[in-house]
Amino acid sequence: MTKHDAGIKPTGRNPRYDILFEPVQIGPVRTKNRFYQVPHCNGMGHAYPSSMAAMRGMKAEGGWGVVCTEQVEIHHTSELTPVIEGRLWDDRDIPVMAKMCDQIHEHGALAGIEPCYDGLATPNRYSREIPMGPSARPVSYLEPVQGRAMDKADIRNVRRWYVDAAKRAQKAGFDIVYVYAGHDLNILSHFLSRRWNNRGDEYGGSLENRVRLLREVLSDTKDAVGDTCGIALRFGVDELMGAEGLSHQGEGRDVVEMLAEYPDLWDVNVSDWDNDSMTSRFAQSGFQDSYVSFVKKVTSKPVLGVGRYTSPDAMVSLLRTGALDLIGAARPSIADPFLPNKVEEGRIEDIRECIGCNICVSADFHMVPLRCTQNPTMGEEWRKGWHPEKIAKAHADESVLVVGGGPSGLEAARALGQRGYAVTLAEAGTVLGGRVAREGALPGLGEWRRVIDYRQYQISQMANVHTYLESALSAPDLLEFGADHIVIASGAKWTSDGVGRENYAPIPMEDGAHVMTPDDIMDGKSAKGPVVIFDDDHYYMGGVIAELLRDQGLDVTIVTPAADVSHWTHNTLEQGRIQSKLMKMGVKIVPLHNVAAVKVDLVTLECGYTEAEHHIACATFIPVTMRQPVDTLYNEAELLLAGKDDAPTLTRIGDCFGPGTIAAAVYAGHRYARALGEEITDDVPFRRELPHLATE
Amino acid sequence: MTKHDAGIKPTGRNPRYDILFEPVQIGPVRTKNRFYQVPHCNGMGHAYPSSMAAMRGMKAEGGWGVVCTEQVEIHHTSELTPVIEGRLWDDRDIPVMAKMCDQIHEHGALAGIEPCYDGLATPNRYSREIPMGPSARPVSYLEPVQGRAMDKADIRNVRRWYVDAAKRAQKAGFDIVYVYAGHDLNILSHFLSRRWNNRGDEYGGSLENRVRLLREVLSDTKDAVGDTCGIALRFGVDELMGAEGLSHQGEGRDVVEMLAEYPDLWDVNVSDWDNDSMTSRFAQSGFQDSYVSFVKKVTSKPVLGVGRYTSPDAMVSLLRTGALDLIGAARPSIADPFLPNKVEEGRIEDIRECIGCNICVSADFHMVPLRCTQNPTMGEEWRKGWHPEKIAKAHADESVLVVGGGPSGLEAARALGQRGYAVTLAEAGTVLGGRVAREGALPGLGEWRRVIDYRQYQISQMANVHTYLESALSAPDLLEFGADHIVIASGAKWTSDGVGRENYAPIPMEDGAHVMTPDDIMDGKSAKGPVVIFDDDHYYMGGVIAELLRDQGLDVTIVTPAADVSHWTHNTLEQGRIQSKLMKMGVKIVPLHNVAAVKVDLVTLECGYTEAEHHIACATFIPVTMRQPVDTLYNEAELLLAGKDDAPTLTRIGDCFGPGTIAAAVYAGHRYARALGEEITDDVPFRRELPHLATE
Repeated sequence: MTKHDAGIKPTGRNPRYDILFEPVQIGPVRTKNRFYQVPHCNGMGHAYPSSMAAMRGMKAEGGWGVVCTEQVEIHHTSELTPVIEGRLWDDRDIPVMAKMCDQIHEHGALAGIEPCYDGLATPNRYSREIPMGPSARPVSYLEPVQGRAMDKADIRNVRRWYVDAAKRAQKAGFDIVYVYAGHDLNILSHFLSRRWNNRGDEYGGSLENRVRLLREVLSDTKDAVGDTCGIALRFGVDELMGAEGLSHQGEGRDVVEMLAEYPDLWDVNVSDWDNDSMTSRFAQSGFQDSYVSFVKKVTSKPVLGVGRYTSPDAMVSLLRTGALDLIGAARPSIADPFLPNKVEEGRIEDIRECIGCNICVSADFHMVPLRCTQNPTMGEEWRKGWHPEKIAKAHADESVLVVGGGPSGLEAARALGQRGYAVTLAEAGTVLGGRVAREGALPGLGEWRRVIDYRQYQISQMANVHTYLESALSAPDLLEFGADHIVIASGAKWTSDGVGRENYAPIPMEDGAHVMTPDDIMDGKSAKGPVVIFDDDHYYMGGVIAELLRDQGLDVTIVTPAADVSHWTHNTLEQGRIQSKLMKMGVKIVPLHNVAAVKVDLVTLECGYTEAEHHIACATFIPVTMRQPVDTLYNEAELLLAGKDDAPTLTRIGDCFGPGTIAAAVYAGHRYARALGEEITDDVPFRRELPHLATE
Repeated sequence: MTKHDAGIKPTGRNPRYDILFEPVQIGPVRTKNRFYQVPHCNGMGHAYPSSMAAMRGMKAEGGWGVVCTEQVEIHHTSELTPVIEGRLWDDRDIPVMAKMCDQIHEHGALAGIEPCYDGLATPNRYSREIPMGPSARPVSYLEPVQGRAMDKADIRNVRRWYVDAAKRAQKAGFDIVYVYAGHDLNILSHFLSRRWNNRGDEYGGSLENRVRLLREVLSDTKDAVGDTCGIALRFGVDELMGAEGLSHQGEGRDVVEMLAEYPDLWDVNVSDWDNDSMTSRFAQSGFQDSYVSFVKKVTSKPVLGVGRYTSPDAMVSLLRTGALDLIGAARPSIADPFLPNKVEEGRIEDIRECIGCNICVSADFHMVPLRCTQNPTMGEEWRKGWHPEKIAKAHADESVLVVGGGPSGLEAARALGQRGYAVTLAEAGTVLGGRVAREGALPGLGEWRRVIDYRQYQISQMANVHTYLESALSAPDLLEFGADHIVIASGAKWTSDGVGRENYAPIPMEDGAHVMTPDDIMDGKSAKGPVVIFDDDHYYMGGVIAELLRDQGLDVTIVTPAADVSHWTHNTLEQGRIQSKLMKMGVKIVPLHNVAAVKVDLVTLECGYTEAEHHIACATFIPVTMRQPVDTLYNEAELLLAGKDDAPTLTRIGDCFGPGTIAAAVYAGHRYARALGEEITDDVPFRRELPHLATE
């Protein structure tokens, strides 16, 4: 149990954080504090409306002063199917939005909405309408769809649709209505942009002309709902592309100057999404500050910025230095919906800090409810009734032995401890963290260690959780321990035989060939060059090891059956930066090839299209293909327990059950802790958002 | 009006087709004929249930003797989100399936269902469960998820879930229940496969062992619902991978021999989906015959095969030669849901034949309702109330001038003619078909001409549609013509300046550089080598032109900003075959590059990751980047008509409005014809499948 659960009175807010709890006036509405959850995608939207409303409501419960939607489609002629966003096509969509507002208002927060007309940023796959924008262009997806140039009637229509959406938003109960001109993802950005806009009329050419539509929509929205709603302008002040785009020293700044007093709130960031939501591998908290700091100097309106802030001290500093008026957050509010309340209650050390891995983004790309590495309850608020801070008390006065202190074991121990079980956590190694401790030492992944930090601190505060390091246990040890429940979280190891997606059988390897696994590398063993990494895993590991070894001065080649390196990191917005960095470092990349054989001094590569073979020199071969669960202990214990009366329950979780992401491991640990004492059935273990079946 | 619409009595069935209308006994149920719509994905499934039910019902109305679902998830531990399939997780899913059955039964057809446990073929993105299969392996998606090996309890569970699903299917009203072991997409296929299955127990090793689970599920299903349902086995007899997979001369045949009399129906094909649903670019109708012909010799049960059959004579031949008992169809039933009725009614020439383009598949990949190039009503049956054969009568005794005989103009003329308008179709060229006539002459695309053939024949039968070739019209001509409505379908032309997705401004081109467009090539103009094609379009055109020019003996390089050539054709199951063919022909491929400059004898390429530049020799540069609507006539006519009283309506459709696919052009023509005389609003122009909002 934490101090808080145990009824120990929190120490309360440190006065140096008082400034974070000052209200801010945004047009006709007033926030209760300066914590502001900016609009963010969540993979729920109109498809999982009950999940979405509950997730937003949870943020409000956790103390965020403002909680916003994701982008919200305002008209069927610009829709993002199958990507799941909000939807306000007509009045029939109001109830979903109203439900969300209600859940936000229940906790005293303001509700914000971000209407969006995507224009050339969507192919309209569902509505089949021809997209439109400032100029006739292919849409930004690699889709065989070209958009058309808008005429004056089209412009009038789009303006009207923005107004209709704002009025519907007002009706649904929103307090803040956005005008969204960020991320290069909408028609207002496109009109602003010299890249997209080559019109010859009063909406093209000079910046004054290109800003016209944005100015009109701002004015229209204010006229329509400004009586009760604050009007926010979300704007990307810099596109990080120099002269080709908006920049904070050029047209980005000019736009802010031109519209300085138009909105009630400036919500500023860098565009596009790849830049705004950089991972911790590529950017530190606060990396946007230098781009947006000019805004406060240009406008008298409140200014909001983001930067993956998790530290209240950093937040205070931004306010004190006059950089910002409100602390915006998307990812930190996902990792810890209760961040504001924890500051309020003087529980800074309880904040579950975002690790900047962008697993959240991947869920949106995959059109499933948001996931989070740090917060296993994210996306499960309605579906499973999981609260990020509350958990049912133990079903009985029982003990649990958790074997393995990696991400799933740590989270299981923490959550079981919170429930009140007598928990023993036994870790064979010298430190807690398992794979996170190991991977956190790889280039760029240091912040991932926050997965350990949060949990290690939490269990250190629990009298009912005991942690033992260097405690390798045998199967008989497990039984002798006498716990009511044993949960094995012994992780997984990378294999060395090359079996994986591309190879069902081991890759033929000559005797004497030098083969190392990612685990060998993480153990600090030396590779000799030339190194060939075979990446059939497609997430970060292959690329990170390439970076590490290249940094050591070795000749490194990555071979992958995919068309680009670390292919899956497209889903975390990282692929471009990873491949670019590796190439600039001199790592050679051979995409679209398999490894057919490994010899002492070379590997044979096979083209995925032609089956043509060629050889490259190789002194160390590193397959990054799959992992093998470390499940010997589980298997032995299962045999020992078989048929025994009064035997403890035995369960395996995390990578030792199914190797996956760290997020999946944390989730598995949490799920185990929640489920302990509950009857196991194979019914669907969550509430379902069932389709509405038309009766006509 | 067609003969049929005009009340002319159809001539009735030709007796040589009688055999197609014989019933076939499938276990306890009996089909009314031999036309059988095999299970196929549709992008509607559980997410668009009313659309799905109406689409299936339409096939039944069109005469198919059996109409099946797509694959149907049977348990939350194996689900395909965000891919949209059927769902039978629990009893709450029965109503959707029952609705579909009702709509099928209404027309005297049998309803079939294909339950599926995907196992290692899905990462379980929504349910977050660890996938499982015969052996521990990464899932087949490039997703950081590994499946686990099933133990005996898991096998018992999966068997039970198959039985539960069969019982639910029976309850919903299905007549045929599948056991699905095809396409390498499910656990039964995986157990069968030496690639996936390396178990050491009685479910692994020998084929007898590997087939065990399939045999058990077949028996279980028969025991569970065989009293009222026919049990079909869908099986891929050949994986087209030689010794690595099942083959019709090896283990594929052995499986059929081992299970010969187990199912009530054999539904056989080649695996995986890429092979089963090859496009017309790569395979002719009937390409599967030689693989599946042995099956009838091995079993006494009825056998069903597919091969994109649209010709009733070919179908009869398959039955007469004893190759098959039932003619399976997915794509032909999408292109023409009324194919069987047309044969029945002696209207062979009215059949709308599938062109084998796989636009249908792309819709499923994009998780939107099925689209079809030939059948613009596909997916719109419920949403818009569109019937593939029926259309409202003309709203008034009015005339329409259709300018342009490409796919949208042809379809508009056809559908307007069917409504009873007085239609004049004016084509400037010497033949009908527009881009389809031109593209249909490119390598592999000949079958696309069916888009013309169907429509040209239909309008040739309509007394109220008059077609004029070589009839270029000026804007004044249009007005003088005196029609009540003018619709411009004048198409689009490929541009030559390189502007597109990657380049917002024209690519710098040296004076004297030889630049050709795809239209120049289609016009028969000669290129000289070396040729550099810059494919920023990503669909088929760049690759097809490379093939054409390489066939002419030229040195050809394709440069593309994407990671592989013809990237979008992943969505039509063609990318692998396209890139493989091009490489084997000697076409050079430079992915992940932009073209920075074009000189007389070289082009400068820029790496998408490092911006490093290099040069390659180039005598002819062919940008395939975007198309420019041919809209001068429209624009001039609009000016002439402005402010005129009693002016005709003026509309532009198809590529001259928004250049896109041929499917989009046909749809635009059809939509225009349907909408003529209807009030235009900007309300959502279709029925919506709204989310169900939980009230708890």
